[in-house]
Amino acid sequence: MRMYDLIMKKRDGGVLSDAEIRYIVDGFVRGDVPDYQMSAFLMAVFYKGMNDEEILSLTTAMAESGDMVDLSPIEGVKVDKHSTGGVGDKTTLIVAPIVAANGVKVAKMSGRGLGHTGGTVDKLESIPGYRTDLNEQEFFDVVRKTGISVIGQSGNLTPADKKMYALRDVTATVDSIPLIASSIMSKKIAAGSDCILLDVKVGSGAFMKKTDDAIRLAEVMVSLGENAGRRTRAMITDMDTPLGNAIGNSLEVIEAVNTLKGRGPEDLTHECIGLAANMMVLAGLGDEAHCEELARKVIDDGSALKRLIAMVKAQGGDSSVIEDTDNFTKAKYTYDVTSPKDGYITAMDAAGCGIASAMLGAGRETLESEIDYAAGVILKKKTGDQVKTGDVLATLYADDEKLFEGAAARYLEAMTIGDQKKERGPLVYALVSEEGVKRFDD
Amino acid sequence: MRMYDLIMKKRDGGVLSDAEIRYIVDGFVRGDVPDYQMSAFLMAVFYKGMNDEEILSLTTAMAESGDMVDLSPIEGVKVDKHSTGGVGDKTTLIVAPIVAANGVKVAKMSGRGLGHTGGTVDKLESIPGYRTDLNEQEFFDVVRKTGISVIGQSGNLTPADKKMYALRDVTATVDSIPLIASSIMSKKIAAGSDCILLDVKVGSGAFMKKTDDAIRLAEVMVSLGENAGRRTRAMITDMDTPLGNAIGNSLEVIEAVNTLKGRGPEDLTHECIGLAANMMVLAGLGDEAHCEELARKVIDDGSALKRLIAMVKAQGGDSSVIEDTDNFTKAKYTYDVTSPKDGYITAMDAAGCGIASAMLGAGRETLESEIDYAAGVILKKKTGDQVKTGDVLATLYADDEKLFEGAAARYLEAMTIGDQKKERGPLVYALVSEEGVKRFDD
Repeated sequence: MRMYDLIMKKRDGGVLSDAEIRYIVDGFVRGDVPDYQMSAFLMAVFYKGMNDEEILSLTTAMAESGDMVDLSPIEGVKVDKHSTGGVGDKTTLIVAPIVAANGVKVAKMSGRGLGHTGGTVDKLESIPGYRTDLNEQEFFDVVRKTGISVIGQSGNLTPADKKMYALRDVTATVDSIPLIASSIMSKKIAAGSDCILLDVKVGSGAFMKKTDDAIRLAEVMVSLGENAGRRTRAMITDMDTPLGNAIGNSLEVIEAVNTLKGRGPEDLTHECIGLAANMMVLAGLGDEAHCEELARKVIDDGSALKRLIAMVKAQGGDSSVIEDTDNFTKAKYTYDVTSPKDGYITAMDAAGCGIASAMLGAGRETLESEIDYAAGVILKKKTGDQVKTGDVLATLYADDEKLFEGAAARYLEAMTIGDQKKERGPLVYALVSEEGVKRFDD
Repeated sequence: MRMYDLIMKKRDGGVLSDAEIRYIVDGFVRGDVPDYQMSAFLMAVFYKGMNDEEILSLTTAMAESGDMVDLSPIEGVKVDKHSTGGVGDKTTLIVAPIVAANGVKVAKMSGRGLGHTGGTVDKLESIPGYRTDLNEQEFFDVVRKTGISVIGQSGNLTPADKKMYALRDVTATVDSIPLIASSIMSKKIAAGSDCILLDVKVGSGAFMKKTDDAIRLAEVMVSLGENAGRRTRAMITDMDTPLGNAIGNSLEVIEAVNTLKGRGPEDLTHECIGLAANMMVLAGLGDEAHCEELARKVIDDGSALKRLIAMVKAQGGDSSVIEDTDNFTKAKYTYDVTSPKDGYITAMDAAGCGIASAMLGAGRETLESEIDYAAGVILKKKTGDQVKTGDVLATLYADDEKLFEGAAARYLEAMTIGDQKKERGPLVYALVSEEGVKRFDD
């Protein structure tokens, strides 16, 4: 087998065998297949795609390229959750405690933020002392004790994905459904949970701009999960508008805590109950309506919040900031972005909102950038809201006043203010499961 | 400007500006654009193509990436010739002396053979003492003195092409018209001749398999040449069957000498007169019919052969092998490939014939391989010929008897023997010039 021939085969629209795909992935990880051949191959995949068997082979080869986590030492059903990334997406901090309070285990590895999207690991690290670098034994112990543990990616998990993603990122081969699906699902499969709930975001702040594309991606991923013996569902959710009102690390933790107290923004609360319910459905706790009840109950009785506090403590974090979020270190300065005219917010470029937050210090441009955990944006008006000239659209938080001018301009650029009121679209567009696609936006 | 954005632009079918293309080419030569980005870009070009302006920008940037040869110190019109490569293609050894005998100068840099195609430089090096590594002054002096000089590529000519070709060769991005056209024409433009005749081969032994593709490639190249101020024409010629009867280095020199003596195979003679005539048309010596007369005349009166002898002497070669080709060192062993059945040769895989010759030692697998100059194949039967069981189809030449079995099998595999006589197609399919396409095969 020669890589050259396999590039040519895919280039001309051929279907690669399992052995051929494994040759490519293993060779690439070992360094026998050089970057320049891999990038040509990835570009050919971008154009010619892959059929379901090829995507399964690719995902399996990538999952098996490194450690496969064995969660069987932890009793009970383990459910993982993955979001394709959005702005203001702090759902993991809310749904993991909710399902844990209902007896479902969450042993989750999360990523860091890059560009306009945040990462759960960064958000958790805004809690003083919180350790995201537990070893496997510590990780298992925290799950056993509290029902949840959220850590950073550790060990030698899917080295093929790490290396491929780094290459895709610089060769314009990221946005390809077979490559996205295999990248996500190889990590989820290697991470070892029994069930996987996928949150596929669609809209101005998401990677996927069209619902149909998101559904297609979700179908591929659900099929990959089920083929790997994991019960898998995907929710297709809105990311045309940032989720909730907070963007920025400790600001989002505070909003998550408020939501677990039953005082969160409506959109965020609604979506988190849906996500948590579907995780519980996967875990076999009943149908969706019943599981939504279970989710609401543990918010109302405070047991979900207790789970979050327990996890933070177990991972070395200062739980006083959760118990009273006023204990979080605040940004030195705030700045109000005001409306330049009367009208209605008819659209928001959620990615632009995320970039404005990153400009304040909440995000990073490269993986080496330092983060200001207290920096970010609190949205005061969102799509559908009426605004008058001078109304505060958002409050910016930063430790350096010089950052406000640029960030405020970037934030305003992300707002579209029109004359006609426009209602926000649905929060959940569709649910994709083994049974098929259920759409809520028709 | 970022390479990432330019890859994405081309990936999505965008048109790159001259500045953008120059950024890519110059950055790649300098090493600022890494191979893995370039190969992704090349694959995008493979799928999305380039418009005429982009191809012109690419060609110019590649031509100007290194030395531009200035042939103005040599008086008279300088005409270059380029073949896209075939099996048994020894035409340069014949047409250069023909046009030189008519006062046209040929200052030509040629390549080495690789895979199933031979290279003029290798053929000339089968002449003992012949130097292909002249410096510029020596090169110019030989042209001034004899009207011709054929050397290997020297100096820092089109480093962008060298580096890009090496990458295309291992990433399955060779067969793209914009990339082929710019590769060939950047070299020809940098090499400095006033006129360029292109011989675009079509068929089983050529890179181009379809006449229409070859014509499209020729049109692009003619337009590039004319845009660079070089009078340019292209002949589209047959490579479904090896050209002439000899494949292998000294065997081809011997056949070239015979052709210059008026005793060459009919197909080779006919094609060489056509090529030489078109070179003279470009040089302004008259119309095609007149120039064909001029070509025949210098064969008949022996002056073309004298030019070849003069060049060989001037480049340090032992001209006694040209004056009497029996003086060439012969291969130690010969082997006759015979027909396994009665019938007619209905098709030949010319590439297969070339591979058989390379297996005997006449070609190289890598640029480091050693060549056996006396090895090769003499064809005794070609497409259209009747054969009987046991008839000699070809004689193989090698210094190692062990090579015959494999090469003979490979040669036979390249023959299709059927029941119905099938005439060979035309030798010249079309002529492409500034005035348009003239087809001869309709």
